[in-house]
Amino acid sequence: MRWIEGGVCAAKGFSAAGLHCGVKSKNQDKKDVALIVSEETCSAAAVYTKNVVKAAPLHITREHLENGKARAVIANSGIANACAPNGEKHAERMCDLAAEALGIAPGDVIVASTGVIGQEMNIAAVEEHIGALAALLDQSAAGSDAAACAIMTTDTVKKELAVETEVGGKTVRLGGIAKGSGMIHPNMGTMLCFLTTDCAISPAMIKKALLDTVKVSFNRISVDGDTSTNDMCVLMANGLAGNGEITAEGEAYDAFLKALCELCTALARNMASDGEGAKHLITCTVKGAKTEESAETLAKSVISSTLTKAAIFGADANWGRVLCAMGYSGERFDPDGVDIKFVSAAGEIDVCQKGRGLSFDEDLAKRILTEHDVVIDIAMSEGDESCTAWGCDITYDYIKINGDYRT
Amino acid sequence: MRWIEGGVCAAKGFSAAGLHCGVKSKNQDKKDVALIVSEETCSAAAVYTKNVVKAAPLHITREHLENGKARAVIANSGIANACAPNGEKHAERMCDLAAEALGIAPGDVIVASTGVIGQEMNIAAVEEHIGALAALLDQSAAGSDAAACAIMTTDTVKKELAVETEVGGKTVRLGGIAKGSGMIHPNMGTMLCFLTTDCAISPAMIKKALLDTVKVSFNRISVDGDTSTNDMCVLMANGLAGNGEITAEGEAYDAFLKALCELCTALARNMASDGEGAKHLITCTVKGAKTEESAETLAKSVISSTLTKAAIFGADANWGRVLCAMGYSGERFDPDGVDIKFVSAAGEIDVCQKGRGLSFDEDLAKRILTEHDVVIDIAMSEGDESCTAWGCDITYDYIKINGDYRT
Repeated sequence: MRWIEGGVCAAKGFSAAGLHCGVKSKNQDKKDVALIVSEETCSAAAVYTKNVVKAAPLHITREHLENGKARAVIANSGIANACAPNGEKHAERMCDLAAEALGIAPGDVIVASTGVIGQEMNIAAVEEHIGALAALLDQSAAGSDAAACAIMTTDTVKKELAVETEVGGKTVRLGGIAKGSGMIHPNMGTMLCFLTTDCAISPAMIKKALLDTVKVSFNRISVDGDTSTNDMCVLMANGLAGNGEITAEGEAYDAFLKALCELCTALARNMASDGEGAKHLITCTVKGAKTEESAETLAKSVISSTLTKAAIFGADANWGRVLCAMGYSGERFDPDGVDIKFVSAAGEIDVCQKGRGLSFDEDLAKRILTEHDVVIDIAMSEGDESCTAWGCDITYDYIKINGDYRT
Repeated sequence: MRWIEGGVCAAKGFSAAGLHCGVKSKNQDKKDVALIVSEETCSAAAVYTKNVVKAAPLHITREHLENGKARAVIANSGIANACAPNGEKHAERMCDLAAEALGIAPGDVIVASTGVIGQEMNIAAVEEHIGALAALLDQSAAGSDAAACAIMTTDTVKKELAVETEVGGKTVRLGGIAKGSGMIHPNMGTMLCFLTTDCAISPAMIKKALLDTVKVSFNRISVDGDTSTNDMCVLMANGLAGNGEITAEGEAYDAFLKALCELCTALARNMASDGEGAKHLITCTVKGAKTEESAETLAKSVISSTLTKAAIFGADANWGRVLCAMGYSGERFDPDGVDIKFVSAAGEIDVCQKGRGLSFDEDLAKRILTEHDVVIDIAMSEGDESCTAWGCDITYDYIKINGDYRT
């Protein structure tokens, strides 16, 4: 398996585009509608937010994916089309517009939105520019770049990755674009993420692969504990790689799943790293837990702790907050069996052993925690299972961004 | 029932004191050890943090309260005595020191700590000053003031209240001091709070009254979602009011419970209002819910939402975050039956009706949300139950305070 260029256009037969249509922002430099299209009909699956309040596009996409097939994605940023007047009507209209411009069936179009909740979708902006957007469709990396930029909201960097691997003797490519930044929290089918592959795989197996992957990647990150109304992660596979179609578990499925997990985990890390206002990527690894679920609950509790996030922002080795966050996670464990260390490119330092504080070099701890990527490494004495979760620090900029997001 | 002066010394037979002993801070103005004493042995009960990681004083206090009796409280700020070397030994020593200075049994002493986790308790500071502290014991409001100040950490104002009511034909007084500020989150027996009363009430009934009260007061506030290792709420009743001892439910119990609830709800509100760095007290009221539990879960989810807290900080009427936080609370409800309005001394404004955004006067909304006390008023169409929860906004100062708390 190796990393390649091309993002969502890396797999054979996919093209993409992004354009400023004026959905919300008057800033001409801010692309706000993305299109992703496959030459051939794809097996497709999606996971959605577990929030009871779901944006209109999610309902429409769920209907369109009932047959496990799709050919295109249309997505906008700026307006979430959640709790908004005429939500489903506008979401359907977006599918119709894309279908007409591409000469495909509306039922083969996936629709997604991200942005402010409660405002009516500016459908006129899409109507006006859909032709120009379709004309920009590009099979090169530039197409993926434009689409990745078009779905960004408060993201500061675009999230775009692709990998190549062997499946059933054929070279298969998988790529994705994603947006994250705020309202990011585990226990969901997260944020917006569009994944493409030329692997031949059945609708049933693509659904399974996506669920297996989201569980260990996007569902293990948190920015602020708020689960969005608009989260959606879509995977489309057009089969153009020429491998024998994957219809059951086995070697080929495993190879595909491994590549998909690597891709999604990297996208998830990038999302946590670019959390709103974040200055640090925080990786928390819990080892020696009773079960993987227990390790996951503990690791997520640590990366979700506002106080731990504030301590990392301040490069303050306040490990007591880490142990405290484990303690209120809901998991049972022996606090007297917990060791904690902080690790980064600047070194590592043991701060807690068997649940008790160690004397440690505060200057070294400061240097370690000043690095961008910080690891909170937790060893327990409960069993042999482990899990890693990713989050970010909470900063003045997070408050600034979210104190006045709508205007 | 009426509010009176005197805090923890308002009830007959209680005295209190606070002194700078140098537990951690070198600042001579910062009192850091508090003492509360009753002339007579009290019925006493406590609730504790549900965090798996519990500070040493909680274990000792739990042992000492097994018989439902106590006479004194010793509490320090600065060091939490949690996950710290010799934790239980030092907590026991604090009881011994208080008992010796007061001429009572160590088993009648309740001990509590709050401050930095993981550092060894500076027991020498207590040993040195316990005599001076006991000599300061005062039955007037000044004694309560000093004790209230001594348990503060990042609190900016002391929390101290008292009420007077009639129970069984006698005037009964209840008072309390509390500290909050950070690591405050529902689902626990919260923070430090010491309550005294001269009501005659049995150990069994005092336990029941405390549990009933904490459920609807302290367990309905949140500052940052972090549940502390040191939370403890204690109620001591010495019976000096002369009422017939309350030993079962009935009119007298109800009168006592009502006063206790009012007292604790006010202390809880004060705690939320003085959350670390807070500029706003946020009150969220959910009406029309299926059950009180459902209303509570929804209200707590709203006041715990980092994004909602940031919006209130920015006086931004971003009600979509409110509905979103309800949506991920875990409760089932119909989003299309939800109305939301913002209320404060500056007026009120409807922002969402039947789950859809309304056009509203942004300037008026800004004025309403600029007030210190802001109410998020939610009406649902599920049933007739309601609940109120209290929180605060998240601010630059919260980040500042918690980016470098230890040093």
